[in-house]
Amino acid sequence: MTNEIDLQSSNDTRKITIDKVGVKNIRYPIIVDDRTSKSQSTVAELDIFVELLHKHRGTHMSRFIEVLTHFHKENLIAKLPDFLMEVKQALQADSAYTSLRFPYFIEKHAPISEIPSLLAYDCFFEASYQEDYSLTIGVHVPITSLCPCSKEISDYGAHNQRSIVTVKVTIDDFIWIEEIIELVESCASCEIYSLLKRSDEKYVTEKAFNNPRFVEDIVREVTLRLKDDKRIRFFSVESENFESIHSHNAYACVKMRNKK
Amino acid sequence: MTNEIDLQSSNDTRKITIDKVGVKNIRYPIIVDDRTSKSQSTVAELDIFVELLHKHRGTHMSRFIEVLTHFHKENLIAKLPDFLMEVKQALQADSAYTSLRFPYFIEKHAPISEIPSLLAYDCFFEASYQEDYSLTIGVHVPITSLCPCSKEISDYGAHNQRSIVTVKVTIDDFIWIEEIIELVESCASCEIYSLLKRSDEKYVTEKAFNNPRFVEDIVREVTLRLKDDKRIRFFSVESENFESIHSHNAYACVKMRNKK
Amino acid sequence: MTNEIDLQSSNDTRKITIDKVGVKNIRYPIIVDDRTSKSQSTVAELDIFVELLHKHRGTHMSRFIEVLTHFHKENLIAKLPDFLMEVKQALQADSAYTSLRFPYFIEKHAPISEIPSLLAYDCFFEASYQEDYSLTIGVHVPITSLCPCSKEISDYGAHNQRSIVTVKVTIDDFIWIEEIIELVESCASCEIYSLLKRSDEKYVTEKAFNNPRFVEDIVREVTLRLKDDKRIRFFSVESENFESIHSHNAYACVKMRNKK
Amino acid sequence: MTNEIDLQSSNDTRKITIDKVGVKNIRYPIIVDDRTSKSQSTVAELDIFVELLHKHRGTHMSRFIEVLTHFHKENLIAKLPDFLMEVKQALQADSAYTSLRFPYFIEKHAPISEIPSLLAYDCFFEASYQEDYSLTIGVHVPITSLCPCSKEISDYGAHNQRSIVTVKVTIDDFIWIEEIIELVESCASCEIYSLLKRSDEKYVTEKAFNNPRFVEDIVREVTLRLKDDKRIRFFSVESENFESIHSHNAYACVKMRNKK
Repeated sequence: MTNEIDLQSSNDTRKITIDKVGVKNIRYPIIVDDRTSKSQSTVAELDIFVELLHKHRGTHMSRFIEVLTHFHKENLIAKLPDFLMEVKQALQADSAYTSLRFPYFIEKHAPISEIPSLLAYDCFFEASYQEDYSLTIGVHVPITSLCPCSKEISDYGAHNQRSIVTVKVTIDDFIWIEEIIELVESCASCEIYSLLKRSDEKYVTEKAFNNPRFVEDIVREVTLRLKDDKRIRFFSVESENFESIHSHNAYACVKMRNKK
Repeated sequence: MTNEIDLQSSNDTRKITIDKVGVKNIRYPIIVDDRTSKSQSTVAELDIFVELLHKHRGTHMSRFIEVLTHFHKENLIAKLPDFLMEVKQALQADSAYTSLRFPYFIEKHAPISEIPSLLAYDCFFEASYQEDYSLTIGVHVPITSLCPCSKEISDYGAHNQRSIVTVKVTIDDFIWIEEIIELVESCASCEIYSLLKRSDEKYVTEKAFNNPRFVEDIVREVTLRLKDDKRIRFFSVESENFESIHSHNAYACVKMRNKK
Repeated sequence: MTNEIDLQSSNDTRKITIDKVGVKNIRYPIIVDDRTSKSQSTVAELDIFVELLHKHRGTHMSRFIEVLTHFHKENLIAKLPDFLMEVKQALQADSAYTSLRFPYFIEKHAPISEIPSLLAYDCFFEASYQEDYSLTIGVHVPITSLCPCSKEISDYGAHNQRSIVTVKVTIDDFIWIEEIIELVESCASCEIYSLLKRSDEKYVTEKAFNNPRFVEDIVREVTLRLKDDKRIRFFSVESENFESIHSHNAYACVKMRNKK
Repeated sequence: MTNEIDLQSSNDTRKITIDKVGVKNIRYPIIVDDRTSKSQSTVAELDIFVELLHKHRGTHMSRFIEVLTHFHKENLIAKLPDFLMEVKQALQADSAYTSLRFPYFIEKHAPISEIPSLLAYDCFFEASYQEDYSLTIGVHVPITSLCPCSKEISDYGAHNQRSIVTVKVTIDDFIWIEEIIELVESCASCEIYSLLKRSDEKYVTEKAFNNPRFVEDIVREVTLRLKDDKRIRFFSVESENFESIHSHNAYACVKMRNKK
C-alpha cells in the first residue's frame, strides 16, 4: 500500500450533496445497435457521473474507467442499464448518469442513380439510473431547407441551405435511431446524400424547390409525427438553418410532453 | 412593394406553438457594465428568440436584427429589459428571449510584483421577458486546482492543472460579474494571472500546494458562498478540471434554489 | 530576489535552435484601423513567438505579456512593427513573430431598402520581424454561392449555400481589409447581409440565380483580381462551400506569387 | 440522360490552374494498421483533392465519394497509394491529395498496478500522388509537463499541466504511429494514462516532479530522437502546454529536414 489515508472517503461536514461528479470527455471505441447490420463500430466521447452524498468528501475517479473497460468489446448501447448499475455499485452511489456522443453511419441510395454511399449522423444518448432507469436518445439530422418566402417573392430561384435538425426523445419503449432520422428527413425540403450523380442532383434540386419549408415548418412537421408516438414520453425538436443569404442562423425549437 | 403575399403572416392550422424561434449566432460589438471603469467594449455572439403562437405560420426574422441595430452604441447589458420589450413589440410576441456570450476583461495585479495585466473571462447572459423579466448571468472562471490525494500520497509534488469553474445565477437583484469571479477565485487552489514574474510564480506555486482542492471541494466551497445570497434565486456551479495526468477531465456540478 | 538561479538563461548543449517559442491563444481587446471611422474596438486572440538560439535553454514567457501590455489602448495593427521590435529587444531575439485573429465589423446597406446593419468578418494578421518586417493579412468572407450545374440541369431552382472565401495576402504596400472584402464579394453569386427586408430578399435571391458560380469559379475570379496588384507579393485564395445538398463541403484553393 | 451539357467539362479561358479542388470534411468509418492487433476500426474525417488544369472549368465532385466508397471495408491507410492513384484516374488529374484525421486507441498499462486501459491519440495522415507518392504522418500526444523554473524557485510543489505534443514526419520508409508516440512520451515529464489507481498516481506525481521540462526542453528532446532517423525526410515538433497558472498556453516548435 502506498498510503493509509483515503482522502476521498473521509467525512465531509459542508452538508452539500453534489448532483453529478465524475469524468468527462473520455473517448472510447464502442459498438452500437444497427437496424440493418445488427451492430456497427464507432468512436464515442463519454461522460460518466454519480451523485455524491453530502457526507463523503470525494468520489473515486478511476473506478469509472474501470467499469467502462469491463464493457469494452460489448454493445455498450444495448447494455446501458447494466453499465449504469455497475457504476452505481462500484461508486456506492444512489444515482449514476452517462452521456455518449458518436457518429453513426447509414448507407443511403441516391434517389435516381441508386448508387449507395455512407452518411454520418451525430447521435447522443443520455441515460440515468436512479431508482429507475431512464433513457433519452438524440440525433442531429442534416437536411436541405428551402425558403418559402424567397421562392414566393422572387421571379426565379429561392435561397436554400444546409440545416441541422436535432431531435431528442425520452423513451418508454425501444426506438431505432433510423426511425427518427427517416421521420426528420420526410419533413425536410429535401434529404441529404453523400453521393449524387447529375440525375440525382436534378432530382434533389427540383424536390427542394417543390417543398419549401420555413424553419418553423420543419419543427412543426416533426412535432406532428412525434406527438402521437406512445413510445415517447418527452421530446424536443430544434432546427438550425445555416442561411445562405446571412452569416447568422435561423432557429426554431419545440419541446413537448406526450400524453399517456 | 415586391409582393403582396406575406407567407409568414398566413394562418397555420397545425395547432403547434413554437417555444422559441428567431436568429442564432449573430456577432455584434457591444458595451457592457464594468465595475472599475463604468463600461467596456467587447464582442458578443447573440441569439434572439420569441414564442410563436400556433396560429401564425412564421416570424419576421429581419426584425430581430432591426431591434438589435437600435441598441448599437448603447450599453446593451444595462438595457436588456428595454431590448426584450422592443423585440416583443416588433414581433408581436408574448415572450422574448436573448442570450449573449462575450469575453470580459479585468485588470489583475500579480500577487507579489503587482504588475498589472488583463485576463479574459467568458461571460454569458440569458434574459427572458414573458409576463415578467428574468435574468440569468454566468461566467467561466479559469483557476488552478491541485489534487489533495496526489499531494497526500506522494513524497513530493502534486498534480495540478487549469480548471474552468462555471457559475450561473438567476438573480432578483443586481450582482457584478466581478463579485462572482472573486468569489470563485477565493475557492480555488490558486487564482490565475496573465503575467507572473519569478517572485509571483513562486507565490502561486506554493499557494496552490498549500490549498489542495478536489473538483468536489471547489463546487462545494462556491456553493457555500452562493447559498446565502438573497439576491440569487437559483444557481448552478460546475468545475471541469483538465487533469494533467489524464486526457479526460474531472467534473462536478451542484444546482440549487435559494430559500427566500 | 526570490531565487538566484535563472534556469531559462542557462546554457543549452543540445545544439538545437527553436524556430518559434512563446505564448499562444492570449485574448486581448485591441484597436484596429477602420477605413470608414478611422479605428474600431474589437477582441483578438494572439500568439507571440521568438526564435530561440541553440545556446539558450529557455525564453522568458512573462515578457511577451509585458510588451503586449505596453500596447494596450494603442492601435496594435498600425503599430505591429514597433510591437515586434520591442518583443525582439525584450526577449533578446533575432526574430519575432505574432499572429492575431479578430472579428471586424463593417456597416453594410441592404441592396434595395438600404437599411444599414453590421456584418462580422473574421480577420487574421501574421507579422514577422527578422532582418526585415513582413506582413500577411487575411480575411474570411462569407458569401452566397449558387451551383451552375444544378441550375443548368434542373427545370427550376438551383442549390445554393453559404460559403467562406479565405484570402491571405503578403503585402509590400498598405491594403485595406475592406478592399479585399469588396473584391471577394464581387466574385460571389451574391454577397451576404445581416438584415434583409422582403424587397432585399427578392433581390439577393434573383442575383444569386443570375450569377451561378462553382467553387472553382470563385477562386479563379478572386485570383484574376489579385494577380495584377503590385502591392501584393504572395497570395492564396480558398473557398469552402457548405453544400446544401451534402453534409461535406466543396473546396478549392489557389496559391500564387505575383511578378514584380 | 437528364441533360446534355456538362458544364464542369467545358473549356475555361481564365488560364488559372487550381492547386487543389475537391471535397472536405467527409466523415467515414475506416480501418487502420495497428502494431499490436494488426488492424483497428475508427472514424475519420477526410479531405480529398486534385489539381485542376487551367483549361477545365470544373471537377466532378461525386467521383471523389465514389472512389472512397470502393475502399470501404479495406485498410485505407495501407492502401493510400492505390486510393490516390484511383482518384487521379477517376478525375483525370495529374495530382491527387488526401488528408485524414482520426482517433487511434492504444491499450496502456498503469505504471504500478498494471491495470490496462485505452488512450485515444489524435492522428493525421497527409498523402499526395503527383509524379511520386509522398506520405506525411502526424500524431498529437497528450503528456504531463512540469515547469523546471517553478520547481527551482518554490519551497515545495511545482506547476504542471496537460500538454499536447504534435509530431509530423514526412517519411521515406514505414514507421509505426506507436513508435512516434513512445518516443514523445519518453521526452515528457511523465506520460498520461486513462486509468490510475492510488499507487500509480503516486508514481506519476513523483516521476513528473523528478523530470521537470520546459516547453523548449520537450521539443528539443523529441528533435534529438527524430534527427537521426533515416526513415524520416522532414519533421516538425510542436508542444503546446495548457499552463495551470495562466489561461493562455506556452508553445514551442522546431522544423527540420534530415540529412541523407
